[in-house]
Amino acid sequence: MRGNSFGNFLVLTSFGESHGPAVGAVIDGCPAGVALSAEHIDAALARRRPGQSIITSGRREDDHCEILSGVYEGRTLGTPIAVVVRSRDARSGDYDPNVFRIGHADRAWEDKFVHRDHRGGGRASGRETIARVIGGAIAERILPESVKIVAFARQIGHVALKATPKELTRADVDAFPTRCPERMADAAITEELLRLKEQGDSIGGIVELHIDGVPSGLGEPVFRKAKSRLSDGIMSIGAVSGVSLGDAFTESLLPGSEFHRPVANAPSGTAERSYGIQGGITSGQRIIMRVAIKPVSTTGTMAREGRHDPCIVPRVIPVIESMAALILADLQLAARLDNI
Amino acid sequence: MRGNSFGNFLVLTSFGESHGPAVGAVIDGCPAGVALSAEHIDAALARRRPGQSIITSGRREDDHCEILSGVYEGRTLGTPIAVVVRSRDARSGDYDPNVFRIGHADRAWEDKFVHRDHRGGGRASGRETIARVIGGAIAERILPESVKIVAFARQIGHVALKATPKELTRADVDAFPTRCPERMADAAITEELLRLKEQGDSIGGIVELHIDGVPSGLGEPVFRKAKSRLSDGIMSIGAVSGVSLGDAFTESLLPGSEFHRPVANAPSGTAERSYGIQGGITSGQRIIMRVAIKPVSTTGTMAREGRHDPCIVPRVIPVIESMAALILADLQLAARLDNI
Amino acid sequence: MRGNSFGNFLVLTSFGESHGPAVGAVIDGCPAGVALSAEHIDAALARRRPGQSIITSGRREDDHCEILSGVYEGRTLGTPIAVVVRSRDARSGDYDPNVFRIGHADRAWEDKFVHRDHRGGGRASGRETIARVIGGAIAERILPESVKIVAFARQIGHVALKATPKELTRADVDAFPTRCPERMADAAITEELLRLKEQGDSIGGIVELHIDGVPSGLGEPVFRKAKSRLSDGIMSIGAVSGVSLGDAFTESLLPGSEFHRPVANAPSGTAERSYGIQGGITSGQRIIMRVAIKPVSTTGTMAREGRHDPCIVPRVIPVIESMAALILADLQLAARLDNI
Amino acid sequence: MRGNSFGNFLVLTSFGESHGPAVGAVIDGCPAGVALSAEHIDAALARRRPGQSIITSGRREDDHCEILSGVYEGRTLGTPIAVVVRSRDARSGDYDPNVFRIGHADRAWEDKFVHRDHRGGGRASGRETIARVIGGAIAERILPESVKIVAFARQIGHVALKATPKELTRADVDAFPTRCPERMADAAITEELLRLKEQGDSIGGIVELHIDGVPSGLGEPVFRKAKSRLSDGIMSIGAVSGVSLGDAFTESLLPGSEFHRPVANAPSGTAERSYGIQGGITSGQRIIMRVAIKPVSTTGTMAREGRHDPCIVPRVIPVIESMAALILADLQLAARLDNI
Repeated sequence: MRGNSFGNFLVLTSFGESHGPAVGAVIDGCPAGVALSAEHIDAALARRRPGQSIITSGRREDDHCEILSGVYEGRTLGTPIAVVVRSRDARSGDYDPNVFRIGHADRAWEDKFVHRDHRGGGRASGRETIARVIGGAIAERILPESVKIVAFARQIGHVALKATPKELTRADVDAFPTRCPERMADAAITEELLRLKEQGDSIGGIVELHIDGVPSGLGEPVFRKAKSRLSDGIMSIGAVSGVSLGDAFTESLLPGSEFHRPVANAPSGTAERSYGIQGGITSGQRIIMRVAIKPVSTTGTMAREGRHDPCIVPRVIPVIESMAALILADLQLAARLDNI
Repeated sequence: MRGNSFGNFLVLTSFGESHGPAVGAVIDGCPAGVALSAEHIDAALARRRPGQSIITSGRREDDHCEILSGVYEGRTLGTPIAVVVRSRDARSGDYDPNVFRIGHADRAWEDKFVHRDHRGGGRASGRETIARVIGGAIAERILPESVKIVAFARQIGHVALKATPKELTRADVDAFPTRCPERMADAAITEELLRLKEQGDSIGGIVELHIDGVPSGLGEPVFRKAKSRLSDGIMSIGAVSGVSLGDAFTESLLPGSEFHRPVANAPSGTAERSYGIQGGITSGQRIIMRVAIKPVSTTGTMAREGRHDPCIVPRVIPVIESMAALILADLQLAARLDNI
Repeated sequence: MRGNSFGNFLVLTSFGESHGPAVGAVIDGCPAGVALSAEHIDAALARRRPGQSIITSGRREDDHCEILSGVYEGRTLGTPIAVVVRSRDARSGDYDPNVFRIGHADRAWEDKFVHRDHRGGGRASGRETIARVIGGAIAERILPESVKIVAFARQIGHVALKATPKELTRADVDAFPTRCPERMADAAITEELLRLKEQGDSIGGIVELHIDGVPSGLGEPVFRKAKSRLSDGIMSIGAVSGVSLGDAFTESLLPGSEFHRPVANAPSGTAERSYGIQGGITSGQRIIMRVAIKPVSTTGTMAREGRHDPCIVPRVIPVIESMAALILADLQLAARLDNI
Repeated sequence: MRGNSFGNFLVLTSFGESHGPAVGAVIDGCPAGVALSAEHIDAALARRRPGQSIITSGRREDDHCEILSGVYEGRTLGTPIAVVVRSRDARSGDYDPNVFRIGHADRAWEDKFVHRDHRGGGRASGRETIARVIGGAIAERILPESVKIVAFARQIGHVALKATPKELTRADVDAFPTRCPERMADAAITEELLRLKEQGDSIGGIVELHIDGVPSGLGEPVFRKAKSRLSDGIMSIGAVSGVSLGDAFTESLLPGSEFHRPVANAPSGTAERSYGIQGGITSGQRIIMRVAIKPVSTTGTMAREGRHDPCIVPRVIPVIESMAALILADLQLAARLDNI
């Protein structure tokens, strides 16, 4: 009830402060018999950690998990899966409890809870996303293999992709340090980020999320529509400040006759710009969402020293994918209850 | 679990199909002692119904509620408040069960539940929003009077407000049939809507939501951030396809040094473009969100006959306000549990 | 969260005060395609109402329900099923707001909520059980026909059944006004109740609940064991003050070697005195529970005038069966999620 | 949803299999500012472990916890509190996967989940109660100091307490190895247990739970009555097979005129035999419950070798107290929401 759990059928409970002994998650509701190992989760964690390139911070977060429960002989037991990642390389001396950093949760947190772990944001740190990535890795083991969840940087600062890519794998995206999957754009953004880093400045961007192979019929009619669950989950990521189906803020201004075009070779009633979700329920078509990522709030000296990335977009991408996986697995379990 | 309930402390359970005998809601978790009457709710329902002007459909939905429980001698009892609105003027003969209307839930619903009430969208009809407005009206009785929740049309089609209004009341907004609170814009939009109606076409727009007077400290740190709860609630409205804090899709592309400006005369750490929510928790500053509303999917003959509005934006505005009220009341009750 | 909802997958939300306009329920989570009509529910309501015999109160509660949503052409839609029962014959003048009746909720309620509907117990009245019976009637439509839930009076005052009946249908039980299914016992209890009524006194008893035909595998391992869910549900009935698996308060004092006898012709590991639930999970054997029902707290003049039954046991029986049906249907839906 | 979480406002999520790397709990919903340390929890864990006397098993479970999150500088942060207890002394070789032990969960579990950790019961082991004790220790830090929760053995086999003790502390109870707080009874039970151990047999008993100092007004009117929450929580303990308010299975057979006696020096309307709960809500009077504990199901060789206690009653007592603490703390937090 405190808001550290997410999901209704597949429930992720996240715990841990940035500079405490560990962060982790308990996932309850995973069916029995799912193949799962620490390696699956570590592979997902590796995709969120910085340190891969010149544009990311110098901090090392070489995170490895331990599965404490719920898995036996490589398969899930139907019992809660507790996973912990121990902290290391915590420099708590860096943080002054009397400074409320602009754009951070510090002030609001202090107002709310009075007693606060000020070190590196405590619970409000980006380190909390480890729990989401753990959950996403487990969720992807539950989803059918046909489901492909791929997010990528569509725009960072003023540099945008020229065209929306048709088919992309995560490997395609990860091949670019900026996770903007176009050679020219990636190079231009890298140059810009180096410049911003030198100035102790930062920048945000827009991520696009593609989900293919989703079964039709996921999502509930009123309050747990697929689109509202995805919005809830993705907007709960600290860096995110906007979500839309496709490019809704532009396309909503089109006449209905143009907006509601049918999809060729799809069942009648399927509209192209519903982006895979009609009446809150997945249609089996590709889901497309856009996500606005605000500029990192740490600017100035700490940014110049390279202790924070000038742009969080590449690191947020696997977190967005994780939330999408958690939500789809949750809705897919829910759909088992649709009919008698 | 089926997704017909919303909220964690103040829980709205919505029920009813478009052409069934009634739609309604049960609100559980309302504290005892709150002044409440059917008139409070009817006043809210009056703001969502069409029929007020030439630009809205000819359908009459002169909805009145009956409170079945939870209120005694004009005050709440701390027990569940059941409210029903009887249906009238239902023309179920209009709907052909074998047609899956484009952009509607028809097809997805049939795939999911097999057995379907096809009449006017059934559960997936806009009539479901009555339950939300009932809930919002009750939530507003719980919130302190200082809280002012006002939404308005910022843009419809290509006509936009010239400037963001500083202070607006609901009465200011309701003075304009389009709920676009500027004389010139309202007139231009009205003209455009009449033209679209004639053509049997439709248009969407962008709503802006201002919330003033919110206490600081509302929202939970990780998954129930104020921003993610608002996104969930607002994106669960059928016509909505995007939400953002402020103008996030544009502002995210600014450098951090420009984005993260402090608020004058506010506690240190408060950033202007956090729009009232920092680290997921309300700061006491004005909350500003934008909401993309897609064009109505009914085009052609039915639209020409005026049986559907060419633009749903004015009618969605009180529903957005209702969801915001429900969420803030919920988070406010939650905040009673913050400290020992 | 206020405790007016019950269940996790099949969720019953109950509403209504004794002397308000209506009591009712919303059932969410019922799969689509279940055959259901108002007649099914009315038949269940008929079994809980008094007025069938000389030993019950003179009050008429000829309750009929209206289904407001969730059912179309005789089958459920997968949407919330709202059901209301209008009040009639309410004599609110009978109740003095300044008297706190002994053994009733009056005092505790006033302490808790301050503002109180004192008429006939308000929300704390036995009339609230209508919602449970509605829920139970729906739950029984979801359960497989093999499941037989039958409760009966095992003992009232000092008169007890001579032997535990082997096979009983509800019709067998309903053939006796006391619902104690043995001619001699029924007659002796009837005589006793007439005597108590004359004296303005009351009496309690012990109900036994048999559930046959339950699939194995229902119930969760730790906190949602079949036995704890049944205890929660049954103990939430106002008149109930004790529950046990079989005759646990006596049999627990046996040596383990005698207690843990295997069941003949059952899978190895099945114990007779586990009464159908092992490790919290149903085994497929008959579930047997006993339920202690306390004496009605209304004694003296009102009891003498026959406005309250001298013994509530016969009327509680269908409520116990309803709670069992709700719980089993809930656990059965949950079990759809057990395996990948 | 899988049934590994308990509570609505203070939520305990339990995890861990008997022979896995660790068992533990995440407690979410604890307010900020509560004094808490690993020592508080370890002291509670010490009360549940065997090895204190000749009547308990030879197994050593010298359990110490580690707090991974939610506590900073000795006080809670309002964030989830994750606590783990590492396993040691696991003799998994003892268990044969092909044997379904009578009275255990083995068979039902295998039927349900197919894939099973058979070692020592896996998730269905008594070791799971560590999570409950962790939760109870935290709950007791939240409850006012006035609340005293004390359980004791009222009867084991045929040996019962002569009189119900008036005032008892946990120290009073813990002074007796059997936790039956009367010198003669304790000695007689000890002798009996040694005899049973020699024979490889076991025995159950009846525990009585006293709760003093509870504020009035806790518990919700319908489904979350104090009595039903306590029944749910206590019946979810593996060894428990019955619960009652006071001695309900006997007292229910009394005439109402005798049953419903007023309490001297208490507010009007308070009944003695309501045992502290009226209409589901605490009255401020002492709560008294009885709990039936079935005989340990392990008999024969393993019991003779002293690897299991012949009687689980003394060890279950702190688990019952823990569940009561969790429930009262949960209901107390809920009561913050009663009034506007």
